[in-house]
Amino acid sequence: MSVSFDVAQSDRTSAARTGVLHTPHGDIPTPVFAPVGTQATVKTLTPDELHDLDATLILANTYHLYLRPGAEVIAKLGGLHAFMGWPGPILTDSGGFQVFSLESLRRVSDDGVVFRSHIDGSEHVFSPEKAISIQEQLGADIIMTLDECPDPLDRDYNRVALDRTHRWAERCLKAHRRSDQALFGILQGGVFPDLRCESARFLTALGFDGYALGGLSVGEPKAKTWEMLDVTVPLLPLDRPRYLMGVGSPEDLFEGVERGIDVFDCVLPTRLARNGAVFTSQGRINLRKAQFAEDPAPIEEGCTCYTCQRFTRAYLRHLYKAGEILGLRLNTLHNLHFLLDLMRRIRAAILDGSLGQLKQRFLATYAAVEDSTGQRAQALSRRRSKQDTAD
Amino acid sequence: MSVSFDVAQSDRTSAARTGVLHTPHGDIPTPVFAPVGTQATVKTLTPDELHDLDATLILANTYHLYLRPGAEVIAKLGGLHAFMGWPGPILTDSGGFQVFSLESLRRVSDDGVVFRSHIDGSEHVFSPEKAISIQEQLGADIIMTLDECPDPLDRDYNRVALDRTHRWAERCLKAHRRSDQALFGILQGGVFPDLRCESARFLTALGFDGYALGGLSVGEPKAKTWEMLDVTVPLLPLDRPRYLMGVGSPEDLFEGVERGIDVFDCVLPTRLARNGAVFTSQGRINLRKAQFAEDPAPIEEGCTCYTCQRFTRAYLRHLYKAGEILGLRLNTLHNLHFLLDLMRRIRAAILDGSLGQLKQRFLATYAAVEDSTGQRAQALSRRRSKQDTAD
Repeated sequence: MSVSFDVAQSDRTSAARTGVLHTPHGDIPTPVFAPVGTQATVKTLTPDELHDLDATLILANTYHLYLRPGAEVIAKLGGLHAFMGWPGPILTDSGGFQVFSLESLRRVSDDGVVFRSHIDGSEHVFSPEKAISIQEQLGADIIMTLDECPDPLDRDYNRVALDRTHRWAERCLKAHRRSDQALFGILQGGVFPDLRCESARFLTALGFDGYALGGLSVGEPKAKTWEMLDVTVPLLPLDRPRYLMGVGSPEDLFEGVERGIDVFDCVLPTRLARNGAVFTSQGRINLRKAQFAEDPAPIEEGCTCYTCQRFTRAYLRHLYKAGEILGLRLNTLHNLHFLLDLMRRIRAAILDGSLGQLKQRFLATYAAVEDSTGQRAQALSRRRSKQDTAD
Repeated sequence: MSVSFDVAQSDRTSAARTGVLHTPHGDIPTPVFAPVGTQATVKTLTPDELHDLDATLILANTYHLYLRPGAEVIAKLGGLHAFMGWPGPILTDSGGFQVFSLESLRRVSDDGVVFRSHIDGSEHVFSPEKAISIQEQLGADIIMTLDECPDPLDRDYNRVALDRTHRWAERCLKAHRRSDQALFGILQGGVFPDLRCESARFLTALGFDGYALGGLSVGEPKAKTWEMLDVTVPLLPLDRPRYLMGVGSPEDLFEGVERGIDVFDCVLPTRLARNGAVFTSQGRINLRKAQFAEDPAPIEEGCTCYTCQRFTRAYLRHLYKAGEILGLRLNTLHNLHFLLDLMRRIRAAILDGSLGQLKQRFLATYAAVEDSTGQRAQALSRRRSKQDTAD
């Protein structure tokens, strides 16, 4: 296996740890936040901008890329790294979440899942073997098992779905060929501790290169999200990376890191940016607001991002109101800088034993927003909107 | 006057000349193509990208900026250069063209023009004095007189409008206060040589810092466009810059330069880019086409722009089909690079006496497209579309 993980330092007062995930396309210092590039582009940004932001891992989506432009096209053009011009590590989600959330679902059986394309309505099938084969064509450094994503509060459905997810995980493991790609298993089980533990035990017995917590941050109460981490993470091997899917608000990163999570991804910073909402040390502000119309300050005084070095809130508000694409870019740059910088500080704090203080200091000024674990839930609730299917 | 113009070299076989237009925000080598940043942003690009593309002059629009965010807001924030973060030279159009083309027109009289905002329907008045005062608030290096823009083929209307445009030009000259801004007069007269000559004589007698040819490239036959240049440019003083408004296809740049034009602006490269159409030495190609789906070549082999250095036609097509903003950016970068690079080559060719050969060589492979002088006409024909009012 050419993907490996070294834990460099564990926190003394929490389950947090910092380390390095080695991949064929570079090393990823952990814990890491991965910007989402669903359609082989982190919306509005170039690969060079992502590099300059110090992004070390980005996520792309199997469902979307399989439908458009097609995995074979990407393979012919040299794989996803070459196709999108990003030389660093990439993770592809298996497409399970999209198939089960985008109103595209037709039928599920042990064989696999039949779904319709959100683009042209055409019918397609994902089996565990096919999900792996597509991801091998795409060529990401980290790929994911195909999972079934039920309503997290529906116990009966979760019981059935979990068994299927486990059988699919076994088949994914068997189908997986490329030794230069790490395969992560995805735990499911909704908000039910016994199912979650069962999933952790089953998947760790199979043995994956890493373990993802799926089916969370989809609208369940936040306390449940953290409870599921509390019961499952201790069951996962210390020497394998743990990935909390779909989580990425600043305050949630602290919660996840403290519980031993190494990898996060979320559309939150990029999607918020396109809606005019930007992170500050005080919390989010929305640049649409009239109060910023003549504000000569940057989004955040002292912020070292390109946007804050060069532009005022007044100008950013103007761009937003005028529907100008530059505004979406500049907001995206700032929000990703904010999260990636926070993760840098979190890694440094784990190394020098000050994670608790950093969290306390950060949360003393940062006003969190209620919806923060609900980003994937938002995707669910907006699933009728074609516009929103990608990120 | 702190804006001055030096002609360095005149072509021996045409009226072409190359020189430098000195402004408080930097020198502009001429002939120059100015990318259009209607709403205080050249769509999709940062000021740094424009600088890297070697853009030396950009255009912004008085009508749009007066309505949103407002000239006073921009003045309070330090003027247009500071507001948009562009430290180089800026030219503002007076807004006459927009008022007369965006279905916003209500009444015209000698006093000025009453129009409705395309944003909220509110009523506004532009008088010559107000057009100057707004442009002084914006603070561009080059500002324009308020002109009336009639259908170029309607002689009766052009006769009446020309007299008004001239009276307005006189009042603009009188109203103009800031010595750090050059004021250009705008010639009108439709496609009628006698009216055009009258306009040239009237405005040069008043004495402006430069002269613009307005009311062209709005749908008239291309032969008429060039005829109007042929009859008017010789009447303009040699030591003042000449600006052909709204022209910017590669082949038309040659025609204008040969007739003695120093400054061009056009939404063509940026608007085409957002529609997936990009320039190559063979002519335009449209990346939407299925033939590019697996094309591993850059837009143009050997092109030194960022887009061509890093991305394939296949990827750019994917971005376009997937509705991804990055595609609009990358196409815009390429198209502006193409035009700005062509202008660099044109300037060098005037200097070494090879303009004729350059034109011949360029046009031997470049397949021009019919609509090329009609960019402003397109704006006219699409004037009901709110989307299209800006660029």
